[in-house]
Amino acid sequence: MVILVAYSVWFYPFELAFLAPSHHRGLYLVDVVTDLFFAADILLTFFVAYIDSKTNMIVYDSRRIANRYLSTWFVMDVASTIPYQALYLLFTGRQQVWSCYSLLGLFRFWRLVRVEELFKRLEKNIKFNYFAVRCFRLSCVALFSAHCAACLFFLLAEENHGGKTWIDDFAKYGDETNIWLRYTVAVYWSATTMTTVGYGDLRAENTRERIFITGYMLFNLGLTAYLIGNMTDLVVESARRTMEYRKSIEVASTFVNRNCLPRRLEEQVLAYMSLRFQAERMNQQRFIEELPKSIRRRVCRHLFLPAVQQVYLFKDVSIGTLTSLVSKLRAEYMPPREEVILRKEGPDEVYIIVSGEVEIVSSTTTGGESRLDGELIRSLESLSSGDMFGEAAALCCTPQRFTFRTKVLSQLLRLKTAMLLEAMRINHHDSVTIINNFLRVSITIYISYSANPV
Amino acid sequence: MVILVAYSVWFYPFELAFLAPSHHRGLYLVDVVTDLFFAADILLTFFVAYIDSKTNMIVYDSRRIANRYLSTWFVMDVASTIPYQALYLLFTGRQQVWSCYSLLGLFRFWRLVRVEELFKRLEKNIKFNYFAVRCFRLSCVALFSAHCAACLFFLLAEENHGGKTWIDDFAKYGDETNIWLRYTVAVYWSATTMTTVGYGDLRAENTRERIFITGYMLFNLGLTAYLIGNMTDLVVESARRTMEYRKSIEVASTFVNRNCLPRRLEEQVLAYMSLRFQAERMNQQRFIEELPKSIRRRVCRHLFLPAVQQVYLFKDVSIGTLTSLVSKLRAEYMPPREEVILRKEGPDEVYIIVSGEVEIVSSTTTGGESRLDGELIRSLESLSSGDMFGEAAALCCTPQRFTFRTKVLSQLLRLKTAMLLEAMRINHHDSVTIINNFLRVSITIYISYSANPV
Amino acid sequence: MVILVAYSVWFYPFELAFLAPSHHRGLYLVDVVTDLFFAADILLTFFVAYIDSKTNMIVYDSRRIANRYLSTWFVMDVASTIPYQALYLLFTGRQQVWSCYSLLGLFRFWRLVRVEELFKRLEKNIKFNYFAVRCFRLSCVALFSAHCAACLFFLLAEENHGGKTWIDDFAKYGDETNIWLRYTVAVYWSATTMTTVGYGDLRAENTRERIFITGYMLFNLGLTAYLIGNMTDLVVESARRTMEYRKSIEVASTFVNRNCLPRRLEEQVLAYMSLRFQAERMNQQRFIEELPKSIRRRVCRHLFLPAVQQVYLFKDVSIGTLTSLVSKLRAEYMPPREEVILRKEGPDEVYIIVSGEVEIVSSTTTGGESRLDGELIRSLESLSSGDMFGEAAALCCTPQRFTFRTKVLSQLLRLKTAMLLEAMRINHHDSVTIINNFLRVSITIYISYSANPV
Amino acid sequence: MVILVAYSVWFYPFELAFLAPSHHRGLYLVDVVTDLFFAADILLTFFVAYIDSKTNMIVYDSRRIANRYLSTWFVMDVASTIPYQALYLLFTGRQQVWSCYSLLGLFRFWRLVRVEELFKRLEKNIKFNYFAVRCFRLSCVALFSAHCAACLFFLLAEENHGGKTWIDDFAKYGDETNIWLRYTVAVYWSATTMTTVGYGDLRAENTRERIFITGYMLFNLGLTAYLIGNMTDLVVESARRTMEYRKSIEVASTFVNRNCLPRRLEEQVLAYMSLRFQAERMNQQRFIEELPKSIRRRVCRHLFLPAVQQVYLFKDVSIGTLTSLVSKLRAEYMPPREEVILRKEGPDEVYIIVSGEVEIVSSTTTGGESRLDGELIRSLESLSSGDMFGEAAALCCTPQRFTFRTKVLSQLLRLKTAMLLEAMRINHHDSVTIINNFLRVSITIYISYSANPV
Repeated sequence: MVILVAYSVWFYPFELAFLAPSHHRGLYLVDVVTDLFFAADILLTFFVAYIDSKTNMIVYDSRRIANRYLSTWFVMDVASTIPYQALYLLFTGRQQVWSCYSLLGLFRFWRLVRVEELFKRLEKNIKFNYFAVRCFRLSCVALFSAHCAACLFFLLAEENHGGKTWIDDFAKYGDETNIWLRYTVAVYWSATTMTTVGYGDLRAENTRERIFITGYMLFNLGLTAYLIGNMTDLVVESARRTMEYRKSIEVASTFVNRNCLPRRLEEQVLAYMSLRFQAERMNQQRFIEELPKSIRRRVCRHLFLPAVQQVYLFKDVSIGTLTSLVSKLRAEYMPPREEVILRKEGPDEVYIIVSGEVEIVSSTTTGGESRLDGELIRSLESLSSGDMFGEAAALCCTPQRFTFRTKVLSQLLRLKTAMLLEAMRINHHDSVTIINNFLRVSITIYISYSANPV
Repeated sequence: MVILVAYSVWFYPFELAFLAPSHHRGLYLVDVVTDLFFAADILLTFFVAYIDSKTNMIVYDSRRIANRYLSTWFVMDVASTIPYQALYLLFTGRQQVWSCYSLLGLFRFWRLVRVEELFKRLEKNIKFNYFAVRCFRLSCVALFSAHCAACLFFLLAEENHGGKTWIDDFAKYGDETNIWLRYTVAVYWSATTMTTVGYGDLRAENTRERIFITGYMLFNLGLTAYLIGNMTDLVVESARRTMEYRKSIEVASTFVNRNCLPRRLEEQVLAYMSLRFQAERMNQQRFIEELPKSIRRRVCRHLFLPAVQQVYLFKDVSIGTLTSLVSKLRAEYMPPREEVILRKEGPDEVYIIVSGEVEIVSSTTTGGESRLDGELIRSLESLSSGDMFGEAAALCCTPQRFTFRTKVLSQLLRLKTAMLLEAMRINHHDSVTIINNFLRVSITIYISYSANPV
Repeated sequence: MVILVAYSVWFYPFELAFLAPSHHRGLYLVDVVTDLFFAADILLTFFVAYIDSKTNMIVYDSRRIANRYLSTWFVMDVASTIPYQALYLLFTGRQQVWSCYSLLGLFRFWRLVRVEELFKRLEKNIKFNYFAVRCFRLSCVALFSAHCAACLFFLLAEENHGGKTWIDDFAKYGDETNIWLRYTVAVYWSATTMTTVGYGDLRAENTRERIFITGYMLFNLGLTAYLIGNMTDLVVESARRTMEYRKSIEVASTFVNRNCLPRRLEEQVLAYMSLRFQAERMNQQRFIEELPKSIRRRVCRHLFLPAVQQVYLFKDVSIGTLTSLVSKLRAEYMPPREEVILRKEGPDEVYIIVSGEVEIVSSTTTGGESRLDGELIRSLESLSSGDMFGEAAALCCTPQRFTFRTKVLSQLLRLKTAMLLEAMRINHHDSVTIINNFLRVSITIYISYSANPV
Repeated sequence: MVILVAYSVWFYPFELAFLAPSHHRGLYLVDVVTDLFFAADILLTFFVAYIDSKTNMIVYDSRRIANRYLSTWFVMDVASTIPYQALYLLFTGRQQVWSCYSLLGLFRFWRLVRVEELFKRLEKNIKFNYFAVRCFRLSCVALFSAHCAACLFFLLAEENHGGKTWIDDFAKYGDETNIWLRYTVAVYWSATTMTTVGYGDLRAENTRERIFITGYMLFNLGLTAYLIGNMTDLVVESARRTMEYRKSIEVASTFVNRNCLPRRLEEQVLAYMSLRFQAERMNQQRFIEELPKSIRRRVCRHLFLPAVQQVYLFKDVSIGTLTSLVSKLRAEYMPPREEVILRKEGPDEVYIIVSGEVEIVSSTTTGGESRLDGELIRSLESLSSGDMFGEAAALCCTPQRFTFRTKVLSQLLRLKTAMLLEAMRINHHDSVTIINNFLRVSITIYISYSANPV
């Protein structure tokens, strides 16, 4: 459909300006066929449901559809479809009175509204790159106006019988009857003027041409401004992310330099800022929280339930309890060597490892400042995907006994201890299962630790 | 008034440059008549109240009006109204000393201030499209400066008696006395230069012309930048919404793809994001909350009272109680298949359906993962406009027994249970009416349910 | 100082390109004098304190000043001050080797750094209009580069002995020795190229000129983009406010239309939105709260103490108590016919009228919907500047008995009742005074009301 | 590597257009050598680890690396490396069929992807100025397209044997075989057209040239818009800070003028606003709070521990207690003459002075309004770096007895009293040390005050 529109709108000025009336006769058929297509489209519109802008409902009632269409675009659609030229020929048999025909033919430009609509839909479709779609649209606008101006300018010279026209300069380019050559010259002039290059080899020679060119140039001033405005919008948008990244790094860098932080700390700060910016894209939590309750619940179940079911603590726990727990989890990305839980912290949170590795460290504060951070850090053990940590302190209501630190970039699920206890309080049976799971495992671990105390 | 200004400002340079002194005499009358109009306007200004910028009050006191006017624009207004030309002619009878007249005539450009004011008012008037008004304004600025430059450039050639001027090139265009032809050529040159096309067929031939053109070109550099700046501003503004839409959809799409969500969930997420963006415009709650108390109360009463009066629960309740309830309602749009109330939720909120449909569903968790979401959903009954739900749990202080889910896009009024109980506590008589209404209906319903238990 | 810089930088390329060596001799004196001025400035810099960028302290220590200067700009400043030309003349007595001199003279452009600094300071000075300063700066940049290009281009032609140059076209303009004429032509060419008009009457004729012009054109591409970028920035900034106004009104208008609000309500809503936008500028509260404690206290005392001292309730109250009260007041602008206190509201706030009028109204709810809002409103009395309202309910701890509504735009001071009671609790003596003031007045009023009950 | 890319991409069109086949033979060697380098690079890519975009992990597995490379850029990289020309020569020995070679040579432009990547990395590197990098990038794009267009345009004329070409105009410039001269002319034309100057001395003479120029001009329209868009983005970004500064000062200035504040107060308000804007950059607290727990703790220890250890109160306190205190400190910059603690305030906070000076003042409220602020202020003593204040009230739980005011811009560390007491509660031994320290010093001070009471 859009191709037909493009053809008819693009070809119409060309036909008018460059083709001799003798050529037209053959084209009438093509014109009439395209017009028939458009007529069919008008009929179809009466049977297509539309979305009411007030209530956002789809309207199927054919009477309301007809009413709406008749009161809005119907008249213009019909006016742009009538084959004036063919009718005129049919009734009078003559072909001389072009001016009237060309005026009525302008109704065909009404069809551009459809192209406009197509572009709007393309812009909203995320399958297509936004930058590309808008650039393509702007190119079409620029090319189409250059084309129209070229045709009109040639028409102006054609109709000026006798007087000096810009075609006189063009005469020297040889064969005047070659349509292709003529069109090339006209478009060359049109592009030269539109881009404001203005070589000056083709220029206005009489008053009518001067007026036309003056108008075209002023129109181009607006068009160029419009193109630049659009491009600026796109560039600003595409550069925004890099700029934000630079800013956040610059703040960190300024901070580090002003305070003369030691080299190792400096690296940590910069690495953290850099990672935070990258992980932002990976951080889905904010998006999940925007979803409505019912969808959120389903998404959480899909994402986290498999990971939670693997955890030893929730072995044999009923699916109902897990489902309600799952919707309270928060997914987080942690950079490498980040301390998730600090020793002596309160048991506020429990973590499940989805991916990555976490190590248990026991930090011993030294008296002197022997090491940079004044602490001897001993790595005890490392946990990986499917493990849980922090639950010992949470279930026993004691401060954390160890520091837990990520070894690599890890995705963790955080669960507030209060939520866990609340879920256990509601379902007594699952509560017993959880405690049993915990005791069975912890006894094994505690035995091994007491044999090898920290 | 603005038309008069436009006429006088537009015509003045034209008159100066193109019309021979012999033509002027006839125009004196027209000039004097327009000047009289402006003089009348000056008198009128003394009787028009103004708004004081400090206190935002309207000042009617004629003395203060006069003081303000005399100390600000009065002198310029008078200077731009005196018909220097006519006076000069009256006193001396000669017409030769044009330079003085043309200098004094420049005061007329002062009248442009009024056009500027008109445009500012148009820009603030939401009946006119912002884009259109600003484009029109920019076009006027561009056309007017092209016109002035054309007139000045012609005047420059006219006054250069003897030396070679650009008019020599122009001599070949034929009849030199044709004003229309001359004006066309001058404007053609002016537009060629302004749009930086610069064909080169008309160009500076002597030092004075070179200086003038140099100045004009540098001025145009600024003007073009101004035009582009304005256009960019407008384009950025108009593209903002589409961009926001794309961004929100893209975030959702990325999320869905990274987590490989099942097809049905993916559709739900995307549909929700798309609808949320559209409904944003329909969401009036935020606007209502910005209004001051008294207006808000009246708006709420107008919007919600009819819907609330239809609800069975508030039958025969006094208008006073309803009015106070109504101002505590929050209107919300819910997408289709959204769960408004979940089974086992606390009875925190009560909903009234303004439009759309809501179905009562009873979800039964299955043991195995037989269905996608692990739940068998049975639709029990559907509620529509004028119905209320959630009130059973609210009045009995029990958890919700059913899940309520929208079938189509629905507008709901949300009422906090606490607000309802508070309103009932204040007016004892209405409280009894509400309880009676509730019992009468619920008994009927509960009987039918007990006959057909879930 | 800046004038001297402008002179020396502007004149230097002109001197180099257009003046014959014979003219130079006279100018040496002028050059040497300006150089002396700059030398004096270098000496002065050693004694001027500067602000350390790290600690934001002013440094007076002359050794640190010297260190800093020597290690930064000293070398360049000296290099740009040495009068190479005069020295050369002094030592050799010949004037032929210009190329070396012209190269060393480029150091003078270093002085432009000072002009840049001046502009930066101007941009930060709010006494000057931002738009004007930046436009002026951009004009200077454009003019200066056009000037330099013109001089260089002329120099290029001058030095090309024998070969064909663009000066050959120029020869036809007459007297070749007229400096003014030559300069005009060169600047004309320069502006034609910079603004990309490119008439084509003056153009490159040999390879050196082509290279120079190619470079100049590419430089201009960047310069034009820079000009447009700046202008866009300024335009976007200046149009922002109007756009915000339009948006807020449009939201209100859409809301009103969709809900078909009655005409009177529609006007109220639109008037409120419009006023809110204007009053925003008048709303000082937000600014006051940003100030630090000590300044805020002083500002509040200056603004509100006179108004508070007029109020009957605070007659004879000690200045200390008033001062502490005053810093807890919040100033607010209320649109006309806005209900400040509603009947039956809790006594949370007390208001003092600074300007405007407030009327006491007694609203009687009617049974039927006889009037639009279902209420009969009787205006009882009106309060004006210096009056207080809401204090009866506040001191008696009862709900408000009347509705208070503004008649015109009013400035009110709001005081939380809790703050008032707290202040009374602290100073016992003032507390007694306040109660006495209240009783003395209220008895009079209550008597009159009881004689004429509502 | 990038230099090789630049050389090969830059030189390829030049070679094609300007060098006669006889020259090529010598260049084959150079070409083959660069091609070998690129071939080596392809091999290397198989052994370089990459970062997986999904999981953000580095992948070392050589099979996965190979898979990824083969499925993405491998084909293009190989295609751009094959030395078509040399192969062709090797197999056929002829050199005539250039068209095929030139087409295949276009694969070399694929190498530009690497340059693009380099620029992206440069833009993200904060060691380079963002403005400079982007300007350099845009310059490269502009220069490269001008270069390519020049080469193509010349090639077009070269291949048009017989017909009239733009080279006919160029013939008059003399030696046609001079490659340097030819290249200059072509680039001159290219730049003239790209910048839309369009002198018109070089222009299309036949249909092929017209089509080429039309395409080039439309491409340039987009390129120019892209340049301007980028420049606007950069300018807006760089002007943002000055604009914000002006706005905040303007708000303050409007406020001061509307309320006719006394001169001294006006200066204080403006000085405060100005300083606040500068200190914003120095305010590190917000940045510190964004860091994760473990890094924050280390940064705080590095920054504040030395200052805290100097304070008399924390003499001999264990490093563990100080470390935990230090992470609760908040650094603040205070402008001069700012009252940090007001007399009679509650003892909520304790301050440590890092730099600057603080004076203790005793304010006596006078009965009459003798002084501007109604207070006699006596400066008692001044504290400097390493001192602490507010601790007397905090430890004795009484209101502050003095007002503390900064004398110069000071950096203070604020510690909530509750935090201090909490830290003392946890470690009993340190608590005793702190109390002892306090008593020892305060007794000395209190004795001196009682001898000289306020």
